Amino acid sequence: MMMQTCICMVVGVVLLTLGSAVSLPANNHIIENQVKELQDMGCKPVMQKVLVVDLLDETDDLIEMLYFYPQAVAVRRCVEDCSFCGNNHGKIKGRCVASSREEKTFVVTYYENTSPPTKHQRTMTTVEHTQCGCRT
Amino acid sequence: MMMQTCICMVVGVVLLTLGSAVSLPANNHIIENQVKELQDMGCKPVMQKVLVVDLLDETDDLIEMLYFYPQAVAVRRCVEDCSFCGNNHGKIKGRCVASSREEKTFVVTYYENTSPPTKHQRTMTTVEHTQCGCRT
Repeated sequence: MMMQTCICMVVGVVLLTLGSAVSLPANNHIIENQVKELQDMGCKPVMQKVLVVDLLDETDDLIEMLYFYPQAVAVRRCVEDCSFCGNNHGKIKGRCVASSREEKTFVVTYYENTSPPTKHQRTMTTVEHTQCGCRT
Repeated sequence: MMMQTCICMVVGVVLLTLGSAVSLPANNHIIENQVKELQDMGCKPVMQKVLVVDLLDETDDLIEMLYFYPQAVAVRRCVEDCSFCGNNHGKIKGRCVASSREEKTFVVTYYENTSPPTKHQRTMTTVEHTQCGCRT
């Protein structure tokens, strides 16, 4: 009986030790993977949809046009929510901001509100971020 | 002299005709590329950085901890600004929203404000979007 109790205690201690020894490194491995996922996001331009209407002044007559398209343009931008600036522990250090820009030119077709509607095209520009960097 | 003027006029007319004939299809080609860039964005989950602090209740004691990490977690989400729901002309039709979700589990290490600080780990969850769809 004494022997059995002793064996049970030893087995118990061994299992507990193994348990804590295994669970912490397992969690550490999980955290490492989490940080890797953050680091894979990096800090680089990502494609964003920009609405043409948001690029117009309030006074722009394009707003009153019957119809224009494309209604949006895909532009590379540095986006904080799509980026990670931080260290190997997942501590955030700084924000991902544009370090280099250029103008992106695009064309919009629109129809003037005449009868019949007359088709026009306009060349427009917006800022594209060509490089991003972590700024602390 | 008459002959030269005539040739100049003919050349001029030909160039003008060629010019307009070339410029409109060229613009149409530019617009096609613009729409292709929008369509390439599609409507699918993209990696987003979510701050752990934004996932906590105001009453959560983790906020008062000395230090915790990772401070963020990368989660797949359907993001309107990273997506395009529309037709071949670049007309927007609907929004890109989650059509399928699952819980993402992650681990946060934190140090309790004792002397010396004691290390703990907490398993947390947040919603991950596994599929997105255009909803009109």
